[in-house]
Amino acid sequence: MMTLIRGGTVINADRAFRADVLCEGDKIMAVGENLDAPAGATIVDAGGQYVMPGGIDTHTHMQLPFMGTVTADDFFTGTAAGLAGGTTTIMDFVIPNPQQSLLEAFNTWRGWAEKSAGDYTFHVAVTWWDQSVHEEMGVLVRDHGVNSFKHFMAYKNAIMADDETLVKSFRRSLELGAIPTVHAENGELVYQLQQELLAKGIRGVEAHPLSRPPEVEAEAANRAIAIANVLGTPVYIVHVSCAESLEAITRARAKGQRVYGEALAGHLVIDDSVYRHPDPEFARAHVMSPPFRSSHHQQALWQGLRGGNLHTTATDHCTFCAEQKAAGKDDFTRIPNGCGGVEERMAVVWDAGVNTGLLTPSEFVKVTSTNAAQIFNIYPRKGVIQVGADADIVVWDPEGTRTISAATQHSKGGFNVFEGRTVRGIPTHTIAAGKLVFERGELRAEPGAGRHIERPAFTATVA
Amino acid sequence: MMTLIRGGTVINADRAFRADVLCEGDKIMAVGENLDAPAGATIVDAGGQYVMPGGIDTHTHMQLPFMGTVTADDFFTGTAAGLAGGTTTIMDFVIPNPQQSLLEAFNTWRGWAEKSAGDYTFHVAVTWWDQSVHEEMGVLVRDHGVNSFKHFMAYKNAIMADDETLVKSFRRSLELGAIPTVHAENGELVYQLQQELLAKGIRGVEAHPLSRPPEVEAEAANRAIAIANVLGTPVYIVHVSCAESLEAITRARAKGQRVYGEALAGHLVIDDSVYRHPDPEFARAHVMSPPFRSSHHQQALWQGLRGGNLHTTATDHCTFCAEQKAAGKDDFTRIPNGCGGVEERMAVVWDAGVNTGLLTPSEFVKVTSTNAAQIFNIYPRKGVIQVGADADIVVWDPEGTRTISAATQHSKGGFNVFEGRTVRGIPTHTIAAGKLVFERGELRAEPGAGRHIERPAFTATVA
Amino acid sequence: MMTLIRGGTVINADRAFRADVLCEGDKIMAVGENLDAPAGATIVDAGGQYVMPGGIDTHTHMQLPFMGTVTADDFFTGTAAGLAGGTTTIMDFVIPNPQQSLLEAFNTWRGWAEKSAGDYTFHVAVTWWDQSVHEEMGVLVRDHGVNSFKHFMAYKNAIMADDETLVKSFRRSLELGAIPTVHAENGELVYQLQQELLAKGIRGVEAHPLSRPPEVEAEAANRAIAIANVLGTPVYIVHVSCAESLEAITRARAKGQRVYGEALAGHLVIDDSVYRHPDPEFARAHVMSPPFRSSHHQQALWQGLRGGNLHTTATDHCTFCAEQKAAGKDDFTRIPNGCGGVEERMAVVWDAGVNTGLLTPSEFVKVTSTNAAQIFNIYPRKGVIQVGADADIVVWDPEGTRTISAATQHSKGGFNVFEGRTVRGIPTHTIAAGKLVFERGELRAEPGAGRHIERPAFTATVA
Amino acid sequence: MMTLIRGGTVINADRAFRADVLCEGDKIMAVGENLDAPAGATIVDAGGQYVMPGGIDTHTHMQLPFMGTVTADDFFTGTAAGLAGGTTTIMDFVIPNPQQSLLEAFNTWRGWAEKSAGDYTFHVAVTWWDQSVHEEMGVLVRDHGVNSFKHFMAYKNAIMADDETLVKSFRRSLELGAIPTVHAENGELVYQLQQELLAKGIRGVEAHPLSRPPEVEAEAANRAIAIANVLGTPVYIVHVSCAESLEAITRARAKGQRVYGEALAGHLVIDDSVYRHPDPEFARAHVMSPPFRSSHHQQALWQGLRGGNLHTTATDHCTFCAEQKAAGKDDFTRIPNGCGGVEERMAVVWDAGVNTGLLTPSEFVKVTSTNAAQIFNIYPRKGVIQVGADADIVVWDPEGTRTISAATQHSKGGFNVFEGRTVRGIPTHTIAAGKLVFERGELRAEPGAGRHIERPAFTATVA
Repeated sequence: MMTLIRGGTVINADRAFRADVLCEGDKIMAVGENLDAPAGATIVDAGGQYVMPGGIDTHTHMQLPFMGTVTADDFFTGTAAGLAGGTTTIMDFVIPNPQQSLLEAFNTWRGWAEKSAGDYTFHVAVTWWDQSVHEEMGVLVRDHGVNSFKHFMAYKNAIMADDETLVKSFRRSLELGAIPTVHAENGELVYQLQQELLAKGIRGVEAHPLSRPPEVEAEAANRAIAIANVLGTPVYIVHVSCAESLEAITRARAKGQRVYGEALAGHLVIDDSVYRHPDPEFARAHVMSPPFRSSHHQQALWQGLRGGNLHTTATDHCTFCAEQKAAGKDDFTRIPNGCGGVEERMAVVWDAGVNTGLLTPSEFVKVTSTNAAQIFNIYPRKGVIQVGADADIVVWDPEGTRTISAATQHSKGGFNVFEGRTVRGIPTHTIAAGKLVFERGELRAEPGAGRHIERPAFTATVA
Repeated sequence: MMTLIRGGTVINADRAFRADVLCEGDKIMAVGENLDAPAGATIVDAGGQYVMPGGIDTHTHMQLPFMGTVTADDFFTGTAAGLAGGTTTIMDFVIPNPQQSLLEAFNTWRGWAEKSAGDYTFHVAVTWWDQSVHEEMGVLVRDHGVNSFKHFMAYKNAIMADDETLVKSFRRSLELGAIPTVHAENGELVYQLQQELLAKGIRGVEAHPLSRPPEVEAEAANRAIAIANVLGTPVYIVHVSCAESLEAITRARAKGQRVYGEALAGHLVIDDSVYRHPDPEFARAHVMSPPFRSSHHQQALWQGLRGGNLHTTATDHCTFCAEQKAAGKDDFTRIPNGCGGVEERMAVVWDAGVNTGLLTPSEFVKVTSTNAAQIFNIYPRKGVIQVGADADIVVWDPEGTRTISAATQHSKGGFNVFEGRTVRGIPTHTIAAGKLVFERGELRAEPGAGRHIERPAFTATVA
Repeated sequence: MMTLIRGGTVINADRAFRADVLCEGDKIMAVGENLDAPAGATIVDAGGQYVMPGGIDTHTHMQLPFMGTVTADDFFTGTAAGLAGGTTTIMDFVIPNPQQSLLEAFNTWRGWAEKSAGDYTFHVAVTWWDQSVHEEMGVLVRDHGVNSFKHFMAYKNAIMADDETLVKSFRRSLELGAIPTVHAENGELVYQLQQELLAKGIRGVEAHPLSRPPEVEAEAANRAIAIANVLGTPVYIVHVSCAESLEAITRARAKGQRVYGEALAGHLVIDDSVYRHPDPEFARAHVMSPPFRSSHHQQALWQGLRGGNLHTTATDHCTFCAEQKAAGKDDFTRIPNGCGGVEERMAVVWDAGVNTGLLTPSEFVKVTSTNAAQIFNIYPRKGVIQVGADADIVVWDPEGTRTISAATQHSKGGFNVFEGRTVRGIPTHTIAAGKLVFERGELRAEPGAGRHIERPAFTATVA
Repeated sequence: MMTLIRGGTVINADRAFRADVLCEGDKIMAVGENLDAPAGATIVDAGGQYVMPGGIDTHTHMQLPFMGTVTADDFFTGTAAGLAGGTTTIMDFVIPNPQQSLLEAFNTWRGWAEKSAGDYTFHVAVTWWDQSVHEEMGVLVRDHGVNSFKHFMAYKNAIMADDETLVKSFRRSLELGAIPTVHAENGELVYQLQQELLAKGIRGVEAHPLSRPPEVEAEAANRAIAIANVLGTPVYIVHVSCAESLEAITRARAKGQRVYGEALAGHLVIDDSVYRHPDPEFARAHVMSPPFRSSHHQQALWQGLRGGNLHTTATDHCTFCAEQKAAGKDDFTRIPNGCGGVEERMAVVWDAGVNTGLLTPSEFVKVTSTNAAQIFNIYPRKGVIQVGADADIVVWDPEGTRTISAATQHSKGGFNVFEGRTVRGIPTHTIAAGKLVFERGELRAEPGAGRHIERPAFTATVA
C-alpha cells in the first residue's frame, strides 16, 4: 500500500517547506519536491494545503468506568472520532483501583483497547502505594512500554495520592526512566468546599466551579513541582486550566526546572459562563475537573503555549450522555466529570490559535504532536514528517470551514461543548499507519487497526 | 512607683520625636517635652538615646519538652534573658501531644510560665483534630485570651498537621476571630530526605540542611497560603528562612491577601557554613528547623522586612546544652532542634539592619514590636510609646557596643549562635510593666513578675 | 474657637477607638473618652460615626493653564469642593514651562492659590535642566517648604523630561532631602502611536486609550524605578492606572526599594468602556492620561492598595467644561486632558473599598491621608487624629448615602465621571484648621482660609 | 570533494541518533546508518564521538574600529580561530557612524570580510535616523541578505540610539521582515555614573562594573521589550549578562511575547572578581560591556538557557592587546571594551553546561547553532545535520580535554579570559562548507574560503 501526498506544504515543528510525501506500508518513505508516483499508489492532492504530523491527544479516557458509570465512547468510537479530526494517536489512562495490581489493570485496559481504530498508548495511574506497586512500575516500564505514571492529587476517598505516594512514585519513576504526571487539584480543599456548599444547600451545577477555584489547582501544581524539584525528576502537569497554575509552571521553568504543561482544547476557548446556563442539562454537560474558567484564564493559557511554558494540547475526552450526567442533578458532586473533544481539538486549536496569529503553523504542530512525542519518548516515530517516521499524517485545508455540532460528530454522548462554533482550518485527509482513513468527510475507521505504541524508558544520554 | 525617662528621642513605628516619658504603675502616664519629675520618681537619663517600645519576641520555646529532653531555659531564665536584651514580652507555644486536650496542655504551660520575669502569652498548637479540638479552640479564644493557633506542617509521625487538619483548624480560627500560624516545611519530603540520607550513610550534622532544602519550606508556605486564600482567613508564617518562601508570601500579598511573615534574628545574619564547621559540637549547636541558609537568603529576608513583606522578628529561642545536642551525634535526625537568641535579637537586628541603612529606627520598632502587637491584637497596649500603653520600654544607646558571648549571656545552654559578634546599638535600660529591670548591664529580673497577656479575638470592625 | 466632636469612633491608621476630640484654634487639643465641653464650644455629635483625619488629595491641578486653556476649577472652587468631600489638604503642581525659572513659576502658583478655602502645598515640576534649575531646586527646598519634584515622562515636545533630566533631578533631590515623583508614560511611544493613529484617520476619542496602552505606562514606571534604584533615591509614581505598572512597583518593593504608588479614585472604579460611549461629548469628558483601563486593572489597583504596594489615593483633579473638551473633537490629541474628583474621592474609595471588605477603616485612613502625610513629611501635623495635630477632621457616616451628580457637585466643569453612582459612607462634617466648614450638606468655604503648607526636607534621622 | 563521517552519533536539536554523514561539495548528501564510502572520499572516524552542526557565533566584532583603535583579530584570524573551536559561521556587525550611509558602511565591512576563512553574515547597526536610513534599511533587506538590525542603547555621545530611533527602526524592521536586536544598557545612566566615579577620583578598572550595574542593563532590556510589545515586533537582546535583564525577558515570554536572548560564553562562567585582580593589566583585559557579574548571575543565565528563556550563545569576540587596553590605564572609560572567545565558546559551554547536566547534548546544539539559525532565518541551511544542509559540521569528542591558554590559541590579542580552564569535550574535526579545516589540533584555514551568507527576510507564512 503506497500513498503519495502531492503538492502540499509540509509543516514540521522546526520549519515549513514545499514537499511531496510518499508513504509505503505504515512508514514515510520519501519527503521531497516532485516525487514520482509509484505504480498503484493512491494520490492525495494537497495543493494549497498543509501536510502535518497526525495529532497526538495526550489525554483521553475511552471506555472509562468512572463515578459509577462508563463513558459513552469506547476505544473504537473514540479513536475513530480522533481520526476524523486528524488525531492519529491517543494517550489514554490505566487507572487501577486502590489496592488493585497495576499489571492487572493494565491488562484490562489493553483488552478494552484492542478494538481501537487509531494508535494508542497508556499512562498508568499510581493510586496507592506498597512494595508491589514499586515492583510493578518496573515491570510496566521494562516489559510493557510504559514511560509515564499519573497521579491524581484530587478525588479524596477514591484515587487521590497523598504526598507520601507522590514522593515514592516520583522517585521510582526517576529510577526507571519514566516521567511522573499529575492531575493537580488539592483534593482535601475540594472535598471541604464541596461539603460546605452542600451543607449550605447549594447543590446545583453552579456549585461545581465554586468547589474547585483556581487556587486549589495552583496549590497542587506548585506542590507537585516542588516535590519534583527536590527529587530531581521532571514532571508533567495535565490539564492546566488557569493562570495561577500556569504561573507555578512558569516560575519553575524560569529556574530551569524540567516541567511540562498540557492545555485542553476546551479550557482554551470555553469560559465558566456555561455553568450559569439556564438549562441545567446544558450546564451539567460541561462538568469536568478542573472546570472551565473565567475568560482571562483562556488568554493566559494561549500565552503559555506561545511562550513555551505549556507544551501540549489534549482534550481529557471523557464523554457521558445526558442520562448519565443527570445522576448528579440533585447533588453536583455526583455529576460524572467529563467532556468530549478528541475529534475537534485540532480544528479548534488551529482556528483559535493560528488564525488569530497567536501560533505559527509550526508551533501548532509542536503543541498538537511534536512536543507530546518528545516528552513521552516516541519521537521521531511520531510527531514529525520525515523519512522513517510512522505514516501518521493529516492534510489540512486552512481555508476549509466546518460548523461543529453534536448532530454531525462521530463521537458518542450526544453533546458537544464546541456546538455551533464555526472553525476555519480543517482536515481533508487523515492517514494513519499509512492508510487513508479519512477523506473529505468520509471516515473509514476499522476496529482493531490501531496499535498499542510502546514507549521506551528515558536514558541518561538524551533527555 | 514612677519613672521619668528624660531627654531621649521617642521612636514609634510612625515617627520619631523628642519627648520625655513618664511611667506610673505599669502604664505610661505622659509623653511630652520637658515633663516635670514627680516627687520620688526614678529618673532615667536618656540623653542621646532612643526610647522605644519594649521588644516582643513572637516565637520562643521556654521549658519545652521536645525530642526526649527539655530546653535549657525555663520561663524565668528565658524571660529574664529577654529583659536584658530589651524584650519585654514573649509569645510562647502550647504544644499538646496528638490526642491531648488543648485546655489541659494550656493549663500545663500556664503553670510552667508562672515564674516568668517578663510578660508572656501563648500561641496554641493544633496537632490533631476531632470535635473536642474544635470546641476547645472556642474555649481558649473566649475564656483564655488566645487568638492564634499554630500548625506544624513538618515533624511527620509526631505533631505534623495534615491538610485536613489545616483546613478545619483554619476555618475554625476564622469563625472565632483567631489567626492561624504555620511552621512551613513539607514534613513528608523532610522525612523521605532524612531516610534517604541515613540510608546512604550520611548521618552527621551536614545532612541536616540537606534534608530541609528551601523548596521544602516554600512548598509548605505556598500551601498554607493557598488554604488561607480559599477559606478567606489571614495567615502568619513563622520563621521564614529563605527567598523561595518569602516569594510565596510576596506573591500573595501582591494579590492583596492578608499574609504575614516572621524572620528570625539568626536567619537574618547567620549562614549555612556553620553546618560544615570542623567541630561537630559547634555544628550541632546550630541545628534548628528551618536550618540556616546560604547567604543570598539573608539578603532576601532583609529585603522582605524593608519592603513590608515580612513583619516581625523573633528568635525561636529554644536552647539545648551540648550534652543534649550530642544525642544526635550518630544520627542527625536525633539532634534536638533549637538555638537561642531572645537576649540578642534587638541588638542584632539593630546592628545589621539600622546601622547598615536597611531599616530606619521607626521600621526597627515596627519589626521588633509594633507589627507583632497589631497582628496579635495587643496594640496599643504593647508596641507603642503613648499615654495609656503598658510601660514596657527600652532605652537604646545607638553608640553603645557589646561583644556577644556565651560567657556573658543570661540565657542558659552554654552556647551562643552570635558568639563574637560585636554590635553597635544596645539597651541601657529596660522598663517592664513600669519597673526598671535592667540598667546598664545590671539585670533585676524577678520570678513571677511577668504577667500572662490575654489577647482578645479579632472582630469585624477593625482588622 | 473650640469644637468638640462627641461620641464617635476615631479611626487612625494604626487603630480605631472610641473617643471625643476637642479642637481649639487650628489644633487638636484633646482626644479621649467623655471629654467635657468647654464653654462656648461648638458640639458636633458624631454618635454612630467615624472621626477621621481630613483627606489629603496628593494630586490636583487647580487653575492650570494646559493645552491652550485653563481648568474650570480655580483654587477656591477646587479646594471648596474638596472640603465638601472631606478633603482638607490638596497637593497641587507648579509646572514651569521649559526654560522658565522654577521660582518664578512657584510664585505665580502661590499667587493663584491665595484664594484657597482649604490647605494646599505644591509639588514643583522639573521640565528642563540647567544649572539654574539645580540651584532653584535648592532654594525651593530650603526656603519654600517644597520637598517633592515632579517629572513628566510623557508630553513630548512640551514638558517631557528625558533621561538626562531625570537622572540629574533625582540626584539633586536626594542631595536636598526631597522625593522625586513621576508621571510614568513613555512620551516617545505615545507620540508615535498618536501620529500613527492620526495617519490612519483614527481621530476620535476611541483613539485616546489606543495611544497610551498599559505597556507605555509600565515601561516608564520601570525606568523611573531603575534610575531611582541606581541613584539610591526613593521615588513616587503618580496615578498608577494599570496592573503592569503596579507590577513594576511591586517587584521593586519586593527587593526592598523605597517606591511609592498613587492610585486615582477614577482609575479604581471606572473602566475604559467610557471611551466607546456613543456620545462623543461624554467620551471626551473622560479623557485623561493615563486613560481609564479595562476592568481587570481596577481589581489589580485594589489589590495594590490592600497589599501595601500602592500607598495613596488622589484624583488628578483637572476639570474642563464641554466647550474646552470640544477643542479636540476632530483630533483626539487636542482634547484637554483631565477629569474631576476632589469632592468624591473619599466617598468613592470608602464605598468601593471599605463596604466591599477590601480595606479596613484604618486602611482607608492610611490611603486617604496618613501615608500621604508620611511620604511628603507633614506627619503628624496632618494624617492623624492626635493631640497637637492640625484640626483637620472629617466626621463620617458609614450609613449615609448620596448619589453623585454634576447637578449637585460644588466643583466646576459641569461634568462628573462618577455621575449616578450611589455611595454609602459620606462626610457629615468637615473641620479644617479647626473650623466647621461643611455640615450635613452645607458648605461654608471661605476664600483665603486655606494655608500654604510648608513641607520640611527629609533628614537622615527618620525616613 | 567528498567526506564521510563514520561511526558517530549525530546530535540535532530535536534528537540524537547513530548515523554516518556524507558530505559532497559544500552540502550534506546523506545521513544514515552504515553509509558506503564513495571512491576518493575522505573518511573521518567519529567512533565514540558526537557529530553536530557547526557552531554559529551570533555576536563577533572582527577588525572593528572602536574607541580609537582597531581590534586585534581581523576577519581571517577571527574566523580561523572560530573554525579551530568548531564554529563555522559568525554573525558580525556593520556599525555605521552617525550620519554615515548604512550601505556605505555595509560595503566597507563586506570588503574587510573577504579574507574570512569561515562563513559570515552581518547585523547592521542603526545608530541614527533620517529618511535615508529608512530607505537603506529596505535596500539591505531586499538586496543584501540582511534581516537583523542592531541598536545600541548605550554609548552616549557616540552610537547610542534614543527612543525615537528605536521606535522608528523597530517599526521599519517589522515592515521589512527583519528582527531588531539591542545592546541593552541605559546609556544615560552609564554616562552619569562614569562622570560621578571620575569626579570622585575612582579612575581604575574597578570602576568599570560600578558604572554599569545590573539595573542599568535590565532597564534597557525592559524598555526595548516594551517598545517591541507596543509595536508588535519580535526583539532579540544581545549579551544578556544578569538575572535582572533575564527576568525582563522571562516576564515578556511568559506573556507570549516573541523575545529572544543571547548569553555570552564569558558571562556564563566568569565572575566580576576579575576586576579586583591585583594586576591592572589582567583586570583591563576583562573590560567589556556589560561587564562580568557576581556569581549568582552565572547561575541565572544557565537557568535561562535551560528553561528556554535564553536562546543563543555567543562571544562578543572583540580582542585588543595589552597596549591597546592600556589606553585607559588612567581613565577606565577609555579602556577599549572587548574580550575574545570565538575559539573557546563551544568547549566552554559544553564543559560547563553538558558535563554538569545542565544541558543535554541536543540542547547544546540548540543554543550553539540551531536557535541562531532559526531566529536569523538561515535554517535549515545551517543549524542541523540533514540532507541538503550546508556541510558545516563539528566532530566532538566528549572525553577529549584541553587546557585553554593564550599561549596556544589561534586568536590574536595575546590574552584569553578562559586562561587555565581545562575543558572536557573538544572538537576533533571541523568541516566547513564541506572542507576538513580542522583535524585533531591542526588548523587548515584558508583566507577567502568563507562566504557571505545572505539571510532572507521573514514572511508572514512561517515565523
